Amino acid sequence: MIEKEKANQAIEILREKGIDLWLIFVRETKISPDPSLPYILPSSLTWQSALMFFSDGERIAIVGELDRQEVEKSGIFHRVIPYRGGIKESLLGVLKEKNPFSIGLNYSLYDPTSDGLSYGMYLLLQEHLDSTRFLHRITSSEEVVQALRSRKTPAELARIKKSVKETENIFHKLTEILKVGMKEAEIAELFKKWMEELGAEPAWDLSSCPAVFSGPQRVGAHSSPTEKSIREGELLNIDFGIKLNGYCSDLQRMWYFLRKGEKEPPEKILRAFNTIKTSIEMSAKELKPGKKGAEIDSIARSYIKSRGYDEYPHALGHQVGREAHDGAALLGPNWERYGSLPFIPLEESMVFTLEPRINLPDYGVVSLEEMVIIRKDGAEFISHPQKELWLVPA
Amino acid sequence: MIEKEKANQAIEILREKGIDLWLIFVRETKISPDPSLPYILPSSLTWQSALMFFSDGERIAIVGELDRQEVEKSGIFHRVIPYRGGIKESLLGVLKEKNPFSIGLNYSLYDPTSDGLSYGMYLLLQEHLDSTRFLHRITSSEEVVQALRSRKTPAELARIKKSVKETENIFHKLTEILKVGMKEAEIAELFKKWMEELGAEPAWDLSSCPAVFSGPQRVGAHSSPTEKSIREGELLNIDFGIKLNGYCSDLQRMWYFLRKGEKEPPEKILRAFNTIKTSIEMSAKELKPGKKGAEIDSIARSYIKSRGYDEYPHALGHQVGREAHDGAALLGPNWERYGSLPFIPLEESMVFTLEPRINLPDYGVVSLEEMVIIRKDGAEFISHPQKELWLVPA
Repeated sequence: MIEKEKANQAIEILREKGIDLWLIFVRETKISPDPSLPYILPSSLTWQSALMFFSDGERIAIVGELDRQEVEKSGIFHRVIPYRGGIKESLLGVLKEKNPFSIGLNYSLYDPTSDGLSYGMYLLLQEHLDSTRFLHRITSSEEVVQALRSRKTPAELARIKKSVKETENIFHKLTEILKVGMKEAEIAELFKKWMEELGAEPAWDLSSCPAVFSGPQRVGAHSSPTEKSIREGELLNIDFGIKLNGYCSDLQRMWYFLRKGEKEPPEKILRAFNTIKTSIEMSAKELKPGKKGAEIDSIARSYIKSRGYDEYPHALGHQVGREAHDGAALLGPNWERYGSLPFIPLEESMVFTLEPRINLPDYGVVSLEEMVIIRKDGAEFISHPQKELWLVPA
Repeated sequence: MIEKEKANQAIEILREKGIDLWLIFVRETKISPDPSLPYILPSSLTWQSALMFFSDGERIAIVGELDRQEVEKSGIFHRVIPYRGGIKESLLGVLKEKNPFSIGLNYSLYDPTSDGLSYGMYLLLQEHLDSTRFLHRITSSEEVVQALRSRKTPAELARIKKSVKETENIFHKLTEILKVGMKEAEIAELFKKWMEELGAEPAWDLSSCPAVFSGPQRVGAHSSPTEKSIREGELLNIDFGIKLNGYCSDLQRMWYFLRKGEKEPPEKILRAFNTIKTSIEMSAKELKPGKKGAEIDSIARSYIKSRGYDEYPHALGHQVGREAHDGAALLGPNWERYGSLPFIPLEESMVFTLEPRINLPDYGVVSLEEMVIIRKDGAEFISHPQKELWLVPA
């Protein structure tokens, strides 16, 4: 069971990071879902709940009595302590008994996936711990959560691979039926149908999953497909991912719609496509444990600029896991909005996208997105990289 | 469009509550969804985003450039300001221009639906506002959010009514085919199928939506249906709600499985059923603007205790809206875990459940859940209250 595997991994990480207690403090998790919760529990929690992982190996949950049965059934916790009136007494009881010297809470300035604690819940915890010695033992758990999300176990990788494979199948299915005149929205509808047949969810907002771009454009990468028909001489780019068994894929593929009489794409397009392909290969080659994301981003970014193109207005790649944008370490530039994320050292078993982009004003978006896992000696592709531009006959 | 209606209502509420700016500060909203967001935008946001509602009526959004198009398309904002590097400069620019004296942020000690700001995002905002005059103008927006969620517009009420009606239809469909020997899990599967046929989602966690209880038991109300078959002489209680067009229902209905030769349920069951039914009628009668939830809860609670039963281990009722547990004002007792929620004055256009419960050790759960809307002069039932125990022949 994947939840048990991750719960055990969490304990190891706590020891490594020197944090005595990882405290997930949540309520009404269907409304306020802490992104750490799905790693631990398949069900949701209603009243204030404290899920506690101690570095000595013990796992204790304090939950409202209505949630008790589901939490016990998960088999994750050595003790499940139900309450009716309020959580405070049980919470202080466990803290006094275990006396943790550092208490990691889920908050983070720059990493949404380790920022599951709401500000109201933080204030409430302050009230519960008021005038106890525990109040000043609070710290951020972000290093714990980030390691837990980043270090994919074999079972997690298998699920990601499955999602990638099914996504690639969907791209291939489209290739077989693509023709001039199809509408972006029509393609999006097909993707949704195929995704439903798999029993999969979109990896991000359905309105832009898939994102479908054909021909010249000004808009960004997160917009919805339109009623526009694809014409000869245009590029088609699709950004698409699915979530299957809780784990995501995130890929981009490209097609060129030949004009009548054309045998291959214009030189301008081929040059841009090859630049993207090469920038992915170059950056993947340097993607190793110990490097920093900013170094990897800069390889692709500099190469693309050296070929005379504008730099892409986003990061080279992000981690993928339970979310399409997952983990913290980012293959990104040193921009304000990325904060410290591009400077977190890369580790073995992290899964990343590589998605540089060039905009060709006359033809459209030139962009591929591949997925890789970092191994001890370097990156291994999870996706089957697109090596050539796929051509749609006129 | 319901989002525009609510956006306009938000401005009115800001004026009423004397708050100059309501600031929704979010990022990666698919991972960290602020419960206020669906009122404003149908799509998700990726980078740090500031959605700003000023009491002078102006609505301004500062979002990452990739999200710009979707936010503009919503038509909610008078200005959409995109950024690439970081949000800080634009954010300070707008604040300096508009100079709000109070800035309401989405945090709340006891109300999850107005507690959408994460602690990390709060810290980040502190950094952005560091050494500006705005840092000390921050306050909680909970009164604004609570009013916005609680005061149902006619369009919202129509959606809730539709969800209630479809839920009642599902209960009736079940009544037609119920027979001794059916398994709890089998009933849950049927409900899921009927819900999918409607294109509806479960109003809460699928694992306990519906919650199906038959016969004597010790477990709480949030547990999953089991493989247990329903026997003669047992009560069946189902707690079920759907979300359709973004709005929820939440109802409970009850059946008794007659023993061979039995014409009606045992006296013990009828007495408990009538106690529940009467306690709902008594509390609904007093449900008026200006009252407090604790007063209403105490009517049903005292009556049930006066008839010799244990008091129910939860609130009498909660609000329903975009979430099954919505809003803040609660018809609940003065218990630690409910904090101030039972003492918020009740208002016109709030939608509540009424769901008292008795546990009969020999037969099972006796509980109904109805839904009402508060009008100027009192409560109006949205559901069609169950007046008699439904009987399943042996």
